[in-house]
This record gives sequence, C-alpha cells and structure tokens, in this order.
Amino acid sequence: MIARKNTSFIGIMYFAGHHLIWLGLYMGLITVLYKVAGWTKLSIPWLPVSLIGTAVAFYLGFKSSQSYDRTWEARKIWGAIVNSSRSWGSLVNAYISNSNQTPAEIHAIKSRLIYRHIGWLYTLREQLLVPTPWEHVSLKGQFGKVNVQRREKFGVGLFTDYLTERQKRRYFADVEQLNGAVNKATQIIRIQAQDLAAQEENGNLAVLKHIEMQKILNCFYDEQGKAERIKRFPFPRQYANMSFIFTCIFIFLLPFGIVGEFAKLGGFSVWLTIPVGMLAGWIYIVMELVGDYSENPFEGLSTDIPMLSMCRTIEIDLLQMLGETEIPAPIQAKHDILL
Amino acid sequence: MIARKNTSFIGIMYFAGHHLIWLGLYMGLITVLYKVAGWTKLSIPWLPVSLIGTAVAFYLGFKSSQSYDRTWEARKIWGAIVNSSRSWGSLVNAYISNSNQTPAEIHAIKSRLIYRHIGWLYTLREQLLVPTPWEHVSLKGQFGKVNVQRREKFGVGLFTDYLTERQKRRYFADVEQLNGAVNKATQIIRIQAQDLAAQEENGNLAVLKHIEMQKILNCFYDEQGKAERIKRFPFPRQYANMSFIFTCIFIFLLPFGIVGEFAKLGGFSVWLTIPVGMLAGWIYIVMELVGDYSENPFEGLSTDIPMLSMCRTIEIDLLQMLGETEIPAPIQAKHDILL
Amino acid sequence: MIARKNTSFIGIMYFAGHHLIWLGLYMGLITVLYKVAGWTKLSIPWLPVSLIGTAVAFYLGFKSSQSYDRTWEARKIWGAIVNSSRSWGSLVNAYISNSNQTPAEIHAIKSRLIYRHIGWLYTLREQLLVPTPWEHVSLKGQFGKVNVQRREKFGVGLFTDYLTERQKRRYFADVEQLNGAVNKATQIIRIQAQDLAAQEENGNLAVLKHIEMQKILNCFYDEQGKAERIKRFPFPRQYANMSFIFTCIFIFLLPFGIVGEFAKLGGFSVWLTIPVGMLAGWIYIVMELVGDYSENPFEGLSTDIPMLSMCRTIEIDLLQMLGETEIPAPIQAKHDILL
Amino acid sequence: MIARKNTSFIGIMYFAGHHLIWLGLYMGLITVLYKVAGWTKLSIPWLPVSLIGTAVAFYLGFKSSQSYDRTWEARKIWGAIVNSSRSWGSLVNAYISNSNQTPAEIHAIKSRLIYRHIGWLYTLREQLLVPTPWEHVSLKGQFGKVNVQRREKFGVGLFTDYLTERQKRRYFADVEQLNGAVNKATQIIRIQAQDLAAQEENGNLAVLKHIEMQKILNCFYDEQGKAERIKRFPFPRQYANMSFIFTCIFIFLLPFGIVGEFAKLGGFSVWLTIPVGMLAGWIYIVMELVGDYSENPFEGLSTDIPMLSMCRTIEIDLLQMLGETEIPAPIQAKHDILL
Amino acid sequence: MIARKNTSFIGIMYFAGHHLIWLGLYMGLITVLYKVAGWTKLSIPWLPVSLIGTAVAFYLGFKSSQSYDRTWEARKIWGAIVNSSRSWGSLVNAYISNSNQTPAEIHAIKSRLIYRHIGWLYTLREQLLVPTPWEHVSLKGQFGKVNVQRREKFGVGLFTDYLTERQKRRYFADVEQLNGAVNKATQIIRIQAQDLAAQEENGNLAVLKHIEMQKILNCFYDEQGKAERIKRFPFPRQYANMSFIFTCIFIFLLPFGIVGEFAKLGGFSVWLTIPVGMLAGWIYIVMELVGDYSENPFEGLSTDIPMLSMCRTIEIDLLQMLGETEIPAPIQAKHDILL
Repeated sequence: MIARKNTSFIGIMYFAGHHLIWLGLYMGLITVLYKVAGWTKLSIPWLPVSLIGTAVAFYLGFKSSQSYDRTWEARKIWGAIVNSSRSWGSLVNAYISNSNQTPAEIHAIKSRLIYRHIGWLYTLREQLLVPTPWEHVSLKGQFGKVNVQRREKFGVGLFTDYLTERQKRRYFADVEQLNGAVNKATQIIRIQAQDLAAQEENGNLAVLKHIEMQKILNCFYDEQGKAERIKRFPFPRQYANMSFIFTCIFIFLLPFGIVGEFAKLGGFSVWLTIPVGMLAGWIYIVMELVGDYSENPFEGLSTDIPMLSMCRTIEIDLLQMLGETEIPAPIQAKHDILL
Repeated sequence: MIARKNTSFIGIMYFAGHHLIWLGLYMGLITVLYKVAGWTKLSIPWLPVSLIGTAVAFYLGFKSSQSYDRTWEARKIWGAIVNSSRSWGSLVNAYISNSNQTPAEIHAIKSRLIYRHIGWLYTLREQLLVPTPWEHVSLKGQFGKVNVQRREKFGVGLFTDYLTERQKRRYFADVEQLNGAVNKATQIIRIQAQDLAAQEENGNLAVLKHIEMQKILNCFYDEQGKAERIKRFPFPRQYANMSFIFTCIFIFLLPFGIVGEFAKLGGFSVWLTIPVGMLAGWIYIVMELVGDYSENPFEGLSTDIPMLSMCRTIEIDLLQMLGETEIPAPIQAKHDILL
Repeated sequence: MIARKNTSFIGIMYFAGHHLIWLGLYMGLITVLYKVAGWTKLSIPWLPVSLIGTAVAFYLGFKSSQSYDRTWEARKIWGAIVNSSRSWGSLVNAYISNSNQTPAEIHAIKSRLIYRHIGWLYTLREQLLVPTPWEHVSLKGQFGKVNVQRREKFGVGLFTDYLTERQKRRYFADVEQLNGAVNKATQIIRIQAQDLAAQEENGNLAVLKHIEMQKILNCFYDEQGKAERIKRFPFPRQYANMSFIFTCIFIFLLPFGIVGEFAKLGGFSVWLTIPVGMLAGWIYIVMELVGDYSENPFEGLSTDIPMLSMCRTIEIDLLQMLGETEIPAPIQAKHDILL
Repeated sequence: MIARKNTSFIGIMYFAGHHLIWLGLYMGLITVLYKVAGWTKLSIPWLPVSLIGTAVAFYLGFKSSQSYDRTWEARKIWGAIVNSSRSWGSLVNAYISNSNQTPAEIHAIKSRLIYRHIGWLYTLREQLLVPTPWEHVSLKGQFGKVNVQRREKFGVGLFTDYLTERQKRRYFADVEQLNGAVNKATQIIRIQAQDLAAQEENGNLAVLKHIEMQKILNCFYDEQGKAERIKRFPFPRQYANMSFIFTCIFIFLLPFGIVGEFAKLGGFSVWLTIPVGMLAGWIYIVMELVGDYSENPFEGLSTDIPMLSMCRTIEIDLLQMLGETEIPAPIQAKHDILL
Repeated sequence: MIARKNTSFIGIMYFAGHHLIWLGLYMGLITVLYKVAGWTKLSIPWLPVSLIGTAVAFYLGFKSSQSYDRTWEARKIWGAIVNSSRSWGSLVNAYISNSNQTPAEIHAIKSRLIYRHIGWLYTLREQLLVPTPWEHVSLKGQFGKVNVQRREKFGVGLFTDYLTERQKRRYFADVEQLNGAVNKATQIIRIQAQDLAAQEENGNLAVLKHIEMQKILNCFYDEQGKAERIKRFPFPRQYANMSFIFTCIFIFLLPFGIVGEFAKLGGFSVWLTIPVGMLAGWIYIVMELVGDYSENPFEGLSTDIPMLSMCRTIEIDLLQMLGETEIPAPIQAKHDILL
C-alpha cells in the first residue's frame, strides 16, 4: 500500500518512466521514416485509429475496474479477519470460565487460544506471499528480475524481522503437529476446533458458547478461503492478455495515424508526433500497468494490501485484551510503503 | 455532508474557483504565444487530444464512481451502527432482568451498558477523525494549510462543544481502564463483553440471551473494523495519482489542440481559446476534485458523512429507551453543513 | 411509482416540456445574433464542445445510475419489510401459545402484536415523508411551489384518507406512550420488544422462540435505519451539483458550437440550429432531471416508491393471518400513479 | 429462457425484423425528399447527431444493464427457492421423528409438508404470471395483441397441462382454507407454520428443530417477496420511457445527419443512406427492445426465466427424497424455449 | 483456468488466429472491388460507421463484463464450497464424540461422513460438466467439432484418471442408493442429513451440534444450486446473440467506411485498408469471443474454473484432518492449463 497522497515525479518515473524510452524511439522511428526518409505512404487515416483507441479505452477501463475490485476485495477480506479476530479475543475472554479452575489455569487456556490465533495470522500471510506463475516476480528474464528486486527493495523485503524469537515461540507452539500439512493455516484452525472441544469436555466452555466460538472459527475458514481464491485464481488471463494485446495494437497504429495529421500543419510540426504520441501511448500503457499490478494484491510488492501491518494491529489488540503490557510497536510505513 | 439542494455560485467558487485562475493564465499564455508572438507552430491537431480527453474522462468516471462508493459505504457502515445500536438498546431493555434484584439495581445495569455504548460511539468518531498521511489536511505547504482552515471553518471545527461535562462523566465512566489502550474503541467493546459475562454469572441474563447480546457486540466490531478499513486504506494511490496525472497531461495538451481550431475561424476568435479552454479544463479538474474529496469520508471536511449527527441520533433514541426525559437536542446543520 | 408502460406525450410535456421553452429562446437568441445581427464571431469549433458533451454524458450516466440505485434500494428495503412482516405474522401465530390461557386471551395478544406492527408501518411511512432541505418541495420560489402542487396533485395528496377511525384506534392503541418520542417508529419496536419479554414472563412464549421473534424486531430496526439512511443522506451534493453545472456549461456552449456548422450548409439551414439545439439540450436536461427526481424516493411525488400500497399489502396479509374477514381494499393506482 | 446458442435469422426477424420496414420507409422518404424532390436543405451536420447518438448509447447501455440485472436477480431468487426447497425436504426427512408413532404416520406428515410445499411453488408461479399494466401483453391495440399471441405460441401457452389431476389433488389438499385469501402463497406458508407448531405440540418435532424449520419458511417468505418486488415494481418508467424517447429522437435525426454525407460522395451513393440508416437505427432499436423485454422476467414470454422447469426440478428432487418412484418427467424445451 | 501470465503468440493464434483469415479475405475483397474493379461507389462515409462502432463497443463491454461476472461468481461458489468443506471437516472432528463408543467406531463414523462428502464433490463436478445445448461443444458442424477437440486436448480430456479404484470405493460407498436419482448430488446430501440424524439418535451428536452440522449441509445445497444456476441458465441469449449480430454488422460496414479514407491518401495507401481493417475487426471479434467463452465456466474447456484442482485441494485438507498420511498429490497445470 502506498501511504502518501501524491507520488513524486521520481516515483512515477520509477514505476513507468522506462516505457517513455521505447515509446519515444518508436514514435521517432516512424516520424523519421515519414519525414526524413520520405515514406509518406506510412500514414493512415486517423479516424479508424481513434475508434480502436476508444474501444481499447473501454476495455482498459473494464480491466482497471476489475483489478481495483480484486485489491479492494482483498482488503475487505483482511478487514473481516481483523473484525472476527477481535470477536475471537472478546469471546475467549468472556466465554471461557470455570469456577473449579484457578485463574492462572484459565488464563493459560485463554492465552493459548489467542497465541495460536496470532500464529494462524502470520502463517496465512506467509502462505499468501508464495509466488504464483502469473505474478510479476515469476516473469522470465529481465521483467521478472526487476520485480524480484522491487520486492526486495520496496516490498516485503523491507519488513523481514517482524517477529522476535519470543513471539515465535509463543505463537507457533504446536508447530510440530503441522509437519507435513499441505495447508498449515487450515490445520491450525482444526487444532483450535479440537482445543475448543476439549475445553467443553473439561467444563470450561458451555456447549452453546462452544458452538458460537466454533462459528467464529468457520468465519476464519471463510476468510482464508476467500483470500486464497484471489491468490490462486488470477484475473482470467483471456481478459488480461487481450487487454495487453489491444493496447499493443493501438500503440502500434498510433504514430501512423497521427504523423500525417501533424505533417499537414507543415514544417517543424511533424516532429511533434513524437512527444504527443509518447504521451498518448504512455497513458494507455499506464492504464494497463496500473491494472496489471493491482490485480494481484498478494504479490509482495508496493501495491499489495498491508497484511503485515494488519497482522500486527490484531496482535496488539489481542494482547491488550489478555491484559499484557509488553506490546510490540505498530508497523510503520517505510519509504511511504506500508505492507 | 452538504445539506442543501443547490450549492450557491459562491460555494462553487470557494470550492474550485481558484482553479479558473491558473487555467486562465495558462490558456492565455498559449494563446498569446500563438497569436501575438506568432508561434503558430505551437498548434497540434485536435483529434489525438480528443482521444486522450475521452480516455481520461473514462478514468475520471471510474475514480468518481469508486470515490462515491467509499462515501456511500461509509454512510452504510454508520447506518448499520445506528441499527445495531437500537437493537442493543432494545435488547438491554428486554433481556436484562432478575426478580431477585430491585428495579433500581436493574436500571443501573441497563444504564451502564447503554452509557458505555454511547461512549464507544463518540470514541470511535474521534478515532476516525485523526488525520492520515494521504488526507487533504496532511498535504504540505499551502494546500494543507487551506484544508486545515476549511476543517476549522466548515468542518469539524464547527462542532466542538457537543458533549457537556455531565454527558462525558456518564459515557466515559471507565476511562481509566483504557489508559494505554492502542485502540480504545476495541477495548470498550471488550469491557462490554466482560460486563455481559458478569451479568450472566449474577443471574441477570440468561445464557441464550447473553449469546444474542454478544452477537450484537460482534456486529459493533464488524462495523468499527469496516469504518477503519475505509479510513486506513486509501483509494489505491496508483489509481488516484494516475488519474490526476492524466488530467494534467490532458489540460497541458488542451490549448495546443484548440488554439489552431479557433484561429481558423479568423480574427478575434482565437481569443475564445481562453474561455472555452478554461471551461473544458475546469470540468475535468472538478471531476477529479470531487472524486478526490469524496474518497476520504472521515476527513473532518464538509464532504464527510455526518458522524456527529448520527452519534447524537443514537444517543437520543437510547436515552429515550431508558425512559430519560432530559434529552440533548439533535445536531443541526451549520452553514448548510451537517457533520 | 408510475404504473403504466408508456408515458403519454402530455405526461412528458408536463414533466419536462417547459424546458423546451427556454432552450428554444436561448438557441433562437444565439442564432439571431449570428445570422441577423451578423455576429459570426460567436461561433466556436464543434470539436471541443463535443468532447465536453461526451464527458458530461459520462457524468450524467453516473448520476442516473446512482439515482436509480437509490430508488431500487429503497424498494428493496420496503420489500424486506414486507417479507419480515409476513414472517412476523407467521411467528406470532405459531409461537405464541399457552394451554393455561383461553384462546380468546391468546388471540388478543396476537392481535395486539400484529396491530402494533401495522401501526409501526404507517408511522414509519409518515416519518419518511417529512420533507428534507434538499428535496424538490423544499426548493425556494417557483420551483418549490410547483413541486408542492405536484405533491398534492400527483403525489401523496392523492391518498389522504387511507385509514378509517376504526383502523387508527386499533393500530395506534399505545399512542400516548409515544408522546415526546423523537423517533416514534423506533420506540414502537421497543414497546414490541417489551411486550415479547412480558409474554415470555407470562409463559406464553418459550425463551428460544422469544429470541427468534426479537431477531425479527431487530430486522425491522435494520430496515427502518436503511430507509432513514436514504431519506436523510442525500445523493452527495458535490456530485449532484456538479452534474447540474456541467450540463449548464454544455448547453451554454452548444449553440455556439453548432451554429457555425449549420451556417456552412448555407441559406435557411442556419435556423435548424434552433430545433436541433433544443433536442440535444433537452436530452441532456432530461437525463439530469430523471436522475434528480429518482435520487429521493421518499419525496411524496409520483417517482416515489409505493409505500402506501405496500403498507396496505402487509396489512391485508396480516389481518388474513389473524383470520379476520373484514379486510381493507388494496390501494389502486390513481392517474396511473401508485403510491 | 431461450435454450440455444444462436438464434436463427428467422428468429431474429420474428423478434425485431418488422422494425426494418418502417426504418426503411422513413430513411427512404428522407432520401427521396433530398435527392428526388431536391430538398437539400433537409440535411443537418453529422456531428451533433453523433453526439446525441453517443449519449443515447450510454443511456441504452444503462437500461440494458439494469434490465439484465432484473432478469438475473429473478433467476437468483428462483435459484434460492430451489436451494431452500432442497433444504426443506432434507430437514423434513431428518427432523420429523417420533418413536411413539408408526413409520406410516410419520411418513404421512412428511408427505403432507412436502406436498404442500410443492403446492406453494406452483401457486407462486401462477401468481407471478398474472399480467401487470406495464407488461407487453397489457399494451393497447396491435402491440398488445401480438404479445398475447406470442405468450400463447412461444410462451406460457406451450406448457398448459403440466399437472395431472392426481398431482393437483396431492399438492392442493388444503385449497378450501385459501378461499378468499388475497395472496394465496403467503397463506400457504402460514399453514405450514401452523402445521409445524402442531408437530411440535404432538412431540414429533423438537423445539430447536422447529425453530430451524420455521427459519426455512421465513426464507420462502423472503424469496416470494423478492420475486413480487420484481413483478410489481417495474423498471422505473421515468428511465424506461426516456430511453425510448431518446432513441426515437436519435432515429428521427439520423437520416438528416447522414444524407448529406452520402450525397457528398456523389451519384448513386446518396441511396446508401437507406441501408446504412436502417442498420444504424435498427441497432439502437434492438438494444432498446432487448432491454424492454428483459426487464420483466415474469411476463410469460420466451425471455422469461424458466419457472415451470424449476418447479418441476424441485418437485422431482423432493419426491425422490420421500422415496417415491413415480416421478414426473423434467420439463423439456419446446421450440428451443424453456419456461 | 489459464495458469500463466502472458499467452504466447501461438496461443493467441490458436484461440483466434483463424478469424484473421476471413477478415483478410473480406477486407481484401472490398478493396479489390474498389481499387481494381473501380467500384468506388462502394465507399460510405466513415462517421456513421464510427458511431456504430462506438455503440457496439459499449455493448461488447457490457457482455465482457457480465461474462466475467459469471466466471468470477462460479469461482466464488466453488471457493465457498472449499470453505464450507473445511468447516465440515472441522465440525465432524470436533462434534462427533461418544464416551460409550470406541475411538475406532467414532473414527469410522467420521471417515464415512468425510468420504461421502468427497464423493459429493466429485459427483457435483461431473454433473456440472454435462454439456448444455448452448455450450460450444454442442454447436453444430465444424464449430462444435473443434470445441470437442479442444475439450479433449486442452480441457477436461487432460485429466481423466484422477481417482484410483481405492479412492472411488471409499468415496462412493453408497452408490447403489443413488440408482435412479435424477440429481445424485442432491440425494447424497440427503443421505448425509439422515446419517447425522442417526448419529444424534445413537448419542454420538448433541442436538445443538446436529443442527449446526445440518446448517453446513444446507450451505452445500446453496452452493450446489448456485453452480447449477450458472450452468443451466445461460447468459440470456437475447443479449448474447445481439452482441454477436451487432459485431457482424459493424465488421460488414467497416471496409466500406475506411476504404474511401485510405484511397484519399493516394496510390498504394488504399491497400492498407486490408491490414488496418483486419486489426480493427479482429479486436471486436476477440472482445466478443472472450466474452463468449467466459460466459460458460463449466464447459470443460481451458477457460473453465479449476474444479478438479479444487476438489483435490479439499480432499487433501479433509484427509489430513482425519489424520491420514497417504495423501494424493495436488492437481498440476498441464500445458499451462489448470482444471
């Protein structure tokens, strides 16, 4: 998540400036061929290009809008995790009780249920950050390398040591039970469910309250599954690719369509094909790019939703519900990026 | 929330009139260069500018629509808080009962549960009004200063003394328990949950009804978390910034694209570039601005949703449910602004 | 709600015909100045006007779509009230029972719970019809007066005596308890909740069933609150006003943009500026108007959702559930308007 | 529901071919006046017509999209009825039991509850097919007559004898209780609710399970009410009519706008105004028509959702849950239409 | 589901390359007639073609967007199945218990409930893959044949032996009870419901927990019904067909509209009609095609949602919940296609 109102000029150039280079070269090439080499036959009428431009802009608008929806849904899912986690903490506090047990014993049970939940949060986050084949860091060659670097420099790489050894010991106490689990987060919730059943059997949890707490666990399954849906089911590639190809076709035709119009103005004006073509093409490319990066909100890049920060927020709230006083600090944005 | 049908001309000029100034200067400059200085080579063909204008209008439409959704969702969330609060009051009244206790004792418990809830409402509102880095009041330099002034003069500054000392005493009775709480609202609900558990233990609340009331508390966590989602996760800056930059590019190209067309009409007509360019550019800027202000509905500005007014509405309804007769007055709009 | 497929020509003229007058005068004025007075410098190129027209059409489309959503959501809310009311009647019938009481006593309780609910419906409707500052009937001067007349003649004024004295006596039996209530509907539901609690205490309602019936009451709070949200939170004025202003700017520029084009056709053709300009301008104004009237679905005008008719539908269904045979007639459309 | 991938050419001509006739006559008339009668002053510039065309296309897109949503929501509602009906069957089977009664007695109760539910389904369908004033079959004159014929020939008329006498006897066993009921479906559910209450009293249904089954009945009320919402609240006529009128205005202007452009090409070309104008106008009319027919999904025409087929699907599933072996056949599409 | 970021050039040509052939032939034909045969009267003005192109692009955008929604909803439904299945496994583990039975007996019950659920998953998938009349594989002639081949080569044909005999024996243990069932999946859930009822009777399941587990079964009915809704109710053919026909009309008019414009540029340029017309037409066709393939997400083709892969994911998670160690491998993408 980018955490400042306006990106600086440098930020924009870093994000999409390099596209100006090849756009400039391409626009320049066509203009040179037209003007210097005199291949005036390169020109085509503007009007069909304009229609293609309009149709492609529709399609890009559709892609932008759907990609935005994916990011926003991802944020909603994690928001729901925040909310249910607070309910979880609140229920653990209010529902677990037994006058036959010492307060310390009860507190130990409560802590275990809450620590294990925090462990689930961090586990889920780690699972969601494993790259899939269609994410930017998985691209071949130079494109992938740049994105791996970005991931290091402006993405998850910024936040590596977010848990101390003591935190890890507490939150992942039953890690050995999870060896071999294909989906660790799923099995953690299953352990929670069995722990609740054990508490009911021990008389620490009334059956009605047990059922309510199990419902919250089911909510966690729902939210986990929803996040995995966004992670594992890409924006359908038939749409995403075609949008990219249409943009390429439009930019390919663009200089042919405008060079003649500029040439009509006479003299020097034909050279204005280059900057105007660059700007028009760049707008289309950036529309495409913004959609492209926003469609995968769990990539580990700066356009991700801030999972780590939300994990920490929940951790703090839950620890304070337990009455603990040694509270970790909230995650701060680094270089205006919050993850 | 602006609470009148039509904004006056002055209101519009106050909101966006100053943009006409630099638009006029810029359009004027290009026209002067073209006409007076005779740099007729400044002209570019209209058609690519028109295509850019169409594509940018799409993008602005997308931004407008998403910003509207953020404002509307914020209002829905607070509407849900209103509804659940009424249910809360109704349940407190209907479910807390014990024939072994005096009516006064029961009334005291009911009052406490309801007062604390009102305290939660005002606390949540205060928390949502803390500025984030991407809000207008956090902008650097002149832009931020103007918005801080607006916040004072037409925003939250209009409504400062909304709670009397007596109200504060009642609603924030357990304030000392919240010292050090990172998120006070979260912990207030936790206290409510523990109070309910205590009522069950004391025999004032049947277990089934306890569970129902706890569910309402979980709803409050949900709504609080949803409001925090909108507050803390901005409209993704990659979209918002690009929309701004595209508008700038379009306005930059605009006079070059039209000055030649106007010049063709001959004589004086070229000077019409200035007012027409101003109007066209202003429409784009205002579309961008309206989206920009609506995307953050908890900024403390006049386009906010009316949180204070809703807190008061709930407060009145709940106090009347308790049978109280000394009821505060509803919040009235000031200068046609209701907060 | 307009209850016929096609509005007659007269209906349309009544709704928006008067706008043709000033459009005609304005288009005529510019044409006369251009052609008769010879101010041919009034002409501006069509292309930037066209771009503004496209951008404004986007914005109007957005406004239309959001206004439609407000109307449709209002209808959904009242639909949900219908559904929950039927469930209420069904639960009252099935859940209230006590072998220690006479059928007549039980029937009296059932009737009371259902009559009071019908009272709530009509009360909610009345509350939703109180004008807000941004509704058409609150406009100053001639505009407001026309709308007050319309409200009388084609709106709520058509349906004044919809409840007989006997109905009022039955449905508003506890009206004296509501004196001083700021929001009467809210307090009626609260009375219902206390009545249910009393029934549980008297042994007429099992605790589990009590909880279910209370949930239905909470649904009524939800639906009431949602309707109030639409009533009290206008379509954000920053959007609505700007849409209006953009339309004005477009229509202002329109004749300047087309008069030259028509003049090129020579001779008489320039006068066609007037009808064509009128039609084009009228389309934009009507798009704006339709949105403007649809955004407030509880205004008491013909574009409202048919609250009265739905209240009566519920009333009939509930009375028939009670086994009553003296049933009021459904509300019929008058002048093709159903309210 | 049309149940084939591509409509044949004949199907399209049947649906909208007749519009080509008057379009051809109108385009022909203008062209003849222009070319043969030499009224070249009839021509108007293309550009404002084009802008109107774009704005109208937006509006038609909006109407198409909302009409689609109405059809799709109708299908969702009936889909929800399918799902809840299966749950109903499953609960009847699993929850009704009493070791004090013979299996035959229990089976009779189960059958009654399920048969009555099937009766509700068919009743609801019948109620939804009663024409409203704004549906096509209610149009005056020729338009209405054609649609009544279509209803007979390609709509509900295709499926008249869908229930045998034996089925009717079973499913409508308590028909005499419904005499005088304004809304029969509503009262059937009420009878089901009373039957459940009786089963609880007789010891055939635990109270907790009774409450769960009553919740399913409430779902049926919800889905019935949602279907009635779509049936009884038309696509707001202010939107639908204006879309129609805008289309008329556009088509009225169309030949004036293009005849001059074609004439410029010289000679024979002016006559191409007719086919091109017909095609362009026809596209707009068909967009309007498709929306117009899709907005009312319970009209009894071929664009309806397949209610009968879904009723039968549920019937089959429920009968098989009861263990019956004499199962009616699924409804098959006739002439590629499934109702 | 296509599981790679960018489709290769060959992939695109395979998907839609053949359309370039007839587009080229058609564009070529018109150009030859115009240039070689000298039928210059074939030309029509570009502007009405452009308007049609814009209107058609709107309609295609609408179709694309709705088709995307169908695919995405299908994925959401299966995602919900994943989530509820995990809850099912978790509840089976936590709720089934009886101190009077041996662990092995309890484990056998748990296994049966989970195996039968896995059987339901695979059964539902098979049912959803049965072709409907409006799917691509049902097309007549060459079109259908190509799609049947694609289904074999890049679709479900890739994944035939996904269950071993041992798995089948376990998951379909009660297959003989399903003989004659019209909808097997529906009846499997009914068997589960009866099994739960039996467990309650045997004292292995408390009544409250029984009710919760039954609710999960109802969820499966909901999700199954939603998937069947998408499968059995096509994208309304009136919309889908018209979008196809409009595209045809546009492409039919396209070369007539542009050939004259290119000819104006003189000499060789007229031949550029062919590639530019091909590109423009191809963009429209591909927009139409992408929508066309995405509207049916259960066709067995590469654009399907990955049902098999999700079935396996659930299977693995559930088996690990049972503590089994012999776990099948996840489904891998083949040729970048995951089903």
